[in-house]
Amino acid sequence: MASPSLNLVPFVSVEHMMDLVLEIGIDQFLVELAGTIEDDFRRWEDFDKTARVASHSTEGVIELMPTSDGRLYAFKYVNGHPKNTRTGKQTVTAFGVLADVETGYPLLLSEMTILTALRTAATSAVAARHLARPDARTMALIGNGAQSEFQARAFHALLGIDRLRLYDIDAAATKRCMTNLEGLGLDIQACATAEEAVEGADIITTATADKQCATILSDNMVGPGVHINAVGGDCPGKTELHRDILLRSDIFVEYPPQTRIEGEIQQLDDDHPVTELWRVIMDQTPGRSSDSQITLFDSVGFATEDFSALRYVREKLLGTRHFIELDLLADPDEPRDLYGMLLRRQAKLKPSQPA
Amino acid sequence: MASPSLNLVPFVSVEHMMDLVLEIGIDQFLVELAGTIEDDFRRWEDFDKTARVASHSTEGVIELMPTSDGRLYAFKYVNGHPKNTRTGKQTVTAFGVLADVETGYPLLLSEMTILTALRTAATSAVAARHLARPDARTMALIGNGAQSEFQARAFHALLGIDRLRLYDIDAAATKRCMTNLEGLGLDIQACATAEEAVEGADIITTATADKQCATILSDNMVGPGVHINAVGGDCPGKTELHRDILLRSDIFVEYPPQTRIEGEIQQLDDDHPVTELWRVIMDQTPGRSSDSQITLFDSVGFATEDFSALRYVREKLLGTRHFIELDLLADPDEPRDLYGMLLRRQAKLKPSQPA
Repeated sequence: MASPSLNLVPFVSVEHMMDLVLEIGIDQFLVELAGTIEDDFRRWEDFDKTARVASHSTEGVIELMPTSDGRLYAFKYVNGHPKNTRTGKQTVTAFGVLADVETGYPLLLSEMTILTALRTAATSAVAARHLARPDARTMALIGNGAQSEFQARAFHALLGIDRLRLYDIDAAATKRCMTNLEGLGLDIQACATAEEAVEGADIITTATADKQCATILSDNMVGPGVHINAVGGDCPGKTELHRDILLRSDIFVEYPPQTRIEGEIQQLDDDHPVTELWRVIMDQTPGRSSDSQITLFDSVGFATEDFSALRYVREKLLGTRHFIELDLLADPDEPRDLYGMLLRRQAKLKPSQPA
Repeated sequence: MASPSLNLVPFVSVEHMMDLVLEIGIDQFLVELAGTIEDDFRRWEDFDKTARVASHSTEGVIELMPTSDGRLYAFKYVNGHPKNTRTGKQTVTAFGVLADVETGYPLLLSEMTILTALRTAATSAVAARHLARPDARTMALIGNGAQSEFQARAFHALLGIDRLRLYDIDAAATKRCMTNLEGLGLDIQACATAEEAVEGADIITTATADKQCATILSDNMVGPGVHINAVGGDCPGKTELHRDILLRSDIFVEYPPQTRIEGEIQQLDDDHPVTELWRVIMDQTPGRSSDSQITLFDSVGFATEDFSALRYVREKLLGTRHFIELDLLADPDEPRDLYGMLLRRQAKLKPSQPA
């Protein structure tokens, strides 16, 4: 991975990412990535944190998510455009960069559409490991779109969830999710309604994509002891849970200033008590304290998780062929002679002409 | 340029950028780029503007500079690390992305180290066209590093500057700058001091890189009628001009909230009057009103200029071979089936194994 030339930056394409994930194995990738995410949550106070920098339009949002731990810097570019699927495009695409704080030079450019799906699922599993009942085995999965199988795999690999109850307003999505998850030893039930899906579920994961202020879960659907993993509500005006559920739950979040804008808790007062997940991971504050408590992880996705994902990918790339090197940075013979680099290129291309 | 596949994003490497610039010609590139920058300044109110998002460390800064006009979105990643030259690296490197607001999909990924040097010089020339005396022919160029030749070329091509007076604390830098600018019909004088360089200059450009709160120009060096193009002071704690010069000048800036933090005017009170350059370009407010006035363009570099540069490069790329296509975005057969894309890749690589 150490580039002989300063100007070359390793680039992981979508195909390279798939090959890296498949070489490691999806389960192991999720387990190791969750470990990296949890390690970085333990270093929470080392990070330079900021709410994402969003550019909203009528069709969607484009966001930059930067963070740094003082040694490494990362940012992700991510869009959210629900109507994209109508024209065969992804609702969410992403890419990101890891850089060296000491020099400012990028160390890695990577696709992050697949990587974000994996890190979101891994983060959900990290939270659930600390918040769900230890005996949880059944998960309702409401919203069977692009994130659903990753959630199922992460909860299977990290928590031993082996019974899934699927529901989506689009039955074809549920069918595809079931088919995609075949052969993993999971007991999967397709349900006709969200109410049916949550019956007997220890964990309820909501991962719907294209609803504005929907009520995927109403209050009477959530019984005692459940852990809710709310993944879909992740921008202003986009929520999935009825407000009354929030009032009955102990709420855990990534970075409160961002979650209060984007998460389910945008429905609550600005001073409604929430607990930062990193404090639970660090044992500074309890997570679940009784079997009857309702815990809610109001997941919106935070920059440190992308940082962790890029850091993990960079480590795993070592010794593989799953990247190419991009000529992204100008690297003149003499650092201050950028213009001279142009002249030398001209002399090489057309020796007879001035530049 | 229209990619047949949705997932491919055109990428302009450093070598491709050099070839594009050289094919167009440096002068024409600067003139056309200045035109694009000026066009976008005329649409100033269409832009979603924000001060850059900076991550500071002891060694330097990494910044993201996003903006959008509602149709296109752009951001630049740029670092500033003065000590990099000690290890053969650039002080400033940059790359950027142009994206489609309607879909959130990136349209172009480009190196921007060279492009930033060009856009900074083009922006300086745009400002000087409106602020310098029309009969200006002589420019003092103080600081003969990576930006200097670009400034010289832009002022030659856009304002007809044909006499240069160079000074740098490093005489080797001045020598290299002179050599690089040979053959362009410029009358170039190397000067022993900054005082000597400014003698008879109509325009004074300061582009020093690695001084904290330096005083490149002191008050007695600046006579009536001069236009000062202050390029080097561009982050908190980094200025080039004595405060008294600022008090005698009419000051023009790009985006006041950013310039008050980063520019020469960080030395002044927060309410010291400054004029936004776009208002001068739009004839909403006068630029230079007399031959004895001292005008100062307190340049820090703003996101719209990078937007203009990426927009210009994208237009010029059409029909050229100066880019490659990167597999940056996941493009599953079925947009919601990201996980299925992994399974299909696995089936192709190792048909016998589960993913």
